[in-house]
Amino acid sequence: MSRTPEEEANLRLVLAMFEHMLNPMDSAAVDRFIAPDYIQHNQLAEPGREGLKKFLDMIRAETPHAVHDVKRAFVEGDHVTVHYHVRRWPGDNGWAVIDIFRIENGLVSEHWDVMQDVVPGGPNPNSPF
Amino acid sequence: MSRTPEEEANLRLVLAMFEHMLNPMDSAAVDRFIAPDYIQHNQLAEPGREGLKKFLDMIRAETPHAVHDVKRAFVEGDHVTVHYHVRRWPGDNGWAVIDIFRIENGLVSEHWDVMQDVVPGGPNPNSPF
Repeated sequence: MSRTPEEEANLRLVLAMFEHMLNPMDSAAVDRFIAPDYIQHNQLAEPGREGLKKFLDMIRAETPHAVHDVKRAFVEGDHVTVHYHVRRWPGDNGWAVIDIFRIENGLVSEHWDVMQDVVPGGPNPNSPF
Repeated sequence: MSRTPEEEANLRLVLAMFEHMLNPMDSAAVDRFIAPDYIQHNQLAEPGREGLKKFLDMIRAETPHAVHDVKRAFVEGDHVTVHYHVRRWPGDNGWAVIDIFRIENGLVSEHWDVMQDVVPGGPNPNSPF
């Protein structure tokens, strides 16, 4: 593994965004991390940077104790992948989520994600993480 | 972006696996790409390499015309991320899927994935891809 300084910076940006924006579900932190012309591909959020603020406000109101537990993260060039476990409340089986972010000029400019319920008791004894 | 020769080889391996194993859902190709001690984290498959063969046989029997349309792929070190669209039959909205593979000694040794139904008509006009 040999990350360039730009890759290190891109990964740091995304992990700082998790710490300061996504984990606390803090819409006030959005402008610090997200580009004005942000392209959102999440199916449940309204588009753009303002849509993300509204989405964060909604999930914080609905699940104020949600945690976003990062399991692994990778960077190649301007794309960062993060695999994490969302638990909405204590004891929640939660969701497995993988996000892909595209970074441009030091801000998150595009975002794709896939979310799946964690369902214990299936045919595979291994954790989804 | 500056991939090492190992990263190039890891990405090529995974894309060849999509072409020759996952797309044709061909369990006979599994031993060519998958390590004997394969660690499976998919929630619906039985564990291990033999579990993957059974899973491929099952999905090919159920959805023989399924396509796995790769949208983007990234590599960092021994980990490869692939974002793709599964459509089980013509006209299917399908699933958005992101896989993460860990490569060891030229074989896929570990696999995590997240799958989500594509549901048109939500609040975001952007495609999930």
